[in-house]
Amino acid sequence: MRAPARLGIPLADVDTPALILDLDAFERNLQTMADWAKSKNVRLRPHAKSHKCPAIAHRQMALGAVGVCCQKVSEAEVMVDAGITNVLISNEVVGRTKLEALAQLALRARMGVCVDDIRQIRDLSEAMHAAGATIDVLVEINIGGNRCGVEPGDPAVRLGAAVAQADGLRFAGLQSYDGITQHVRDPDERKARAARAGDVTAQTIAALRDIGLECETVGGAGTGSFAFDGMSGVWNELQPGSYAFMDADYARNTPAGGDVPKFEHAMFVWAIVMSRTSVGQAVVDAGHKVLPIDSGMPVPFDRPGVRYERPSDEHGCLVAELDSALPDLGEKILIVPSHVDPTANQHDFFIGVRGMAEGDGTVQEIWPVTARGCVF
Amino acid sequence: MRAPARLGIPLADVDTPALILDLDAFERNLQTMADWAKSKNVRLRPHAKSHKCPAIAHRQMALGAVGVCCQKVSEAEVMVDAGITNVLISNEVVGRTKLEALAQLALRARMGVCVDDIRQIRDLSEAMHAAGATIDVLVEINIGGNRCGVEPGDPAVRLGAAVAQADGLRFAGLQSYDGITQHVRDPDERKARAARAGDVTAQTIAALRDIGLECETVGGAGTGSFAFDGMSGVWNELQPGSYAFMDADYARNTPAGGDVPKFEHAMFVWAIVMSRTSVGQAVVDAGHKVLPIDSGMPVPFDRPGVRYERPSDEHGCLVAELDSALPDLGEKILIVPSHVDPTANQHDFFIGVRGMAEGDGTVQEIWPVTARGCVF
Repeated sequence: MRAPARLGIPLADVDTPALILDLDAFERNLQTMADWAKSKNVRLRPHAKSHKCPAIAHRQMALGAVGVCCQKVSEAEVMVDAGITNVLISNEVVGRTKLEALAQLALRARMGVCVDDIRQIRDLSEAMHAAGATIDVLVEINIGGNRCGVEPGDPAVRLGAAVAQADGLRFAGLQSYDGITQHVRDPDERKARAARAGDVTAQTIAALRDIGLECETVGGAGTGSFAFDGMSGVWNELQPGSYAFMDADYARNTPAGGDVPKFEHAMFVWAIVMSRTSVGQAVVDAGHKVLPIDSGMPVPFDRPGVRYERPSDEHGCLVAELDSALPDLGEKILIVPSHVDPTANQHDFFIGVRGMAEGDGTVQEIWPVTARGCVF
Repeated sequence: MRAPARLGIPLADVDTPALILDLDAFERNLQTMADWAKSKNVRLRPHAKSHKCPAIAHRQMALGAVGVCCQKVSEAEVMVDAGITNVLISNEVVGRTKLEALAQLALRARMGVCVDDIRQIRDLSEAMHAAGATIDVLVEINIGGNRCGVEPGDPAVRLGAAVAQADGLRFAGLQSYDGITQHVRDPDERKARAARAGDVTAQTIAALRDIGLECETVGGAGTGSFAFDGMSGVWNELQPGSYAFMDADYARNTPAGGDVPKFEHAMFVWAIVMSRTSVGQAVVDAGHKVLPIDSGMPVPFDRPGVRYERPSDEHGCLVAELDSALPDLGEKILIVPSHVDPTANQHDFFIGVRGMAEGDGTVQEIWPVTARGCVF
């Protein structure tokens, strides 16, 4: 797979479509989050499922992250191969092939994983025992997302006790994450929902303590809730991913005030106008295969009055009431993806550009999305 | 990138998520379309954007296809590298880098491309002239999709004349395709819309003839309209892609009666139940990164009463009113993607399985999706 750019060329010469990283904005985002977590005395474990890129994970570690999260064993393999030695799979792992691979990883790195079912604990323990490995285990509780996670309170305590007694497993605490909270638009509602989740999490921590199990780690939080969660005194390890890049969907959240840091758009898809046959419409070469729409429409960057609409596999339509607001045939534009994670997973390279705010910018980094497609 | 399977293993042992090809159904689909096109005396040029896989393109060629369509220059490079010597890029190509690459391809294979703007003709001609190459050019007309394409009639004729006079270009005919028609649910409405498009296409063919330009090729048609288009006497080269695989979105079209062949689901995503904590819900390990939802929800295969809902990046929820209808933790299931093209582009391998209808099936082919990510 060839990259759409070479080091040192101007952004204007980067081929399209390409995944562009504004290095200046990206570095500010990383620093902002690292400083904030330090100031609140909570650990930061950024989610690598958002970028799947070891070069980015290493930059997060260099700023004080304790490790990274992954969502899949094959994703974790890429990170461990690249020298990241502390990985939490913030997800359940089911199936013999995956468990054997996870056990091999646990021989090479400090690994953690989540469980929400007694049968997972049994199979995980067998796999670790067979490999002579040990793994940290978080009991995942359902705090309102109604996806994975055992119910808080007694059901979670029973699983915690089972983990603590299982060969090859080390009870490490709770995984307490709710994806829905992240995208609640109103900041007061978002905060209230996070607070309710904090309450049930705290009750479960206390119930575990009652049987002698201390939660060394209480993990969770995303880019929408991390500030509430990080200041709650309940969570001690935050797992945001999108903050480094900021997508159009997170930008649709109304920001919270107070001591809640803000992040800049740093990830874009670079596209060219390839057809311009209708007044009020310009067709670009970026559709479903580079800009997924599971979280709504992408947004043209810094183009007031221009919307991205009617995407198909390889096309998207830029529309505007004023035709002159639209780029002409052969012009290239930046588009903010609606959702960081599936967008990064569509591309093979981050094209890192320095100096975009000052005008055109220059390609200074080309980072492979090494774990792209690592979905096993 | 490792494959989720090895040759000879049973389907049950294939890791998840994986892109499964039911080889028996797939081969019947290929044969059905090839036979139909032959019986109607129209050429078949299947669209490789649906599969991005040279192994599949070669099987289509072996059954009589005159070549393949691609949507991108980089996709065409993969096909030509793999020995496909006749490729139409059924799309406009804009930008110097892409045009130079296209000219190099035109020195190695019979290449075609579409135009809808006089400026594209000028740039294309310059690139071909510089490389000493010649390329077939179709004028793309807008027959109702309102995406790319010049207006039919005089505007198209003017472009045709410009192509015919341009150095390095060979006027080859018209590209006349409407993506919207493909997904009109009612077969009578679908047929009527295709017929209207046929009328304007025929008028443009006649107007070109009036100035001495014959359309050797009138290309277009997809899996939803190919039978109407192929029997119209207007189109002589059909470009369907999804027919080989059939997705859940095309299955939502009401089939036409009469002499219109039907196709079977042959492409699936194989997923495992990784969490089972709520009654009436089973969480599988297949979300946005393997099952795009741009064309609606994927559909669990052969699981009456079970729906796929609330996907996130790495999860999907199977729900049913009757809990016993759901697979249990650790069970694997087949899911029919909602949209073939962006789904194939998410995966690195087709896992070809023989004997699925008889039970479990055996992995007999592992084909790389070589042009996955070739979006330039």
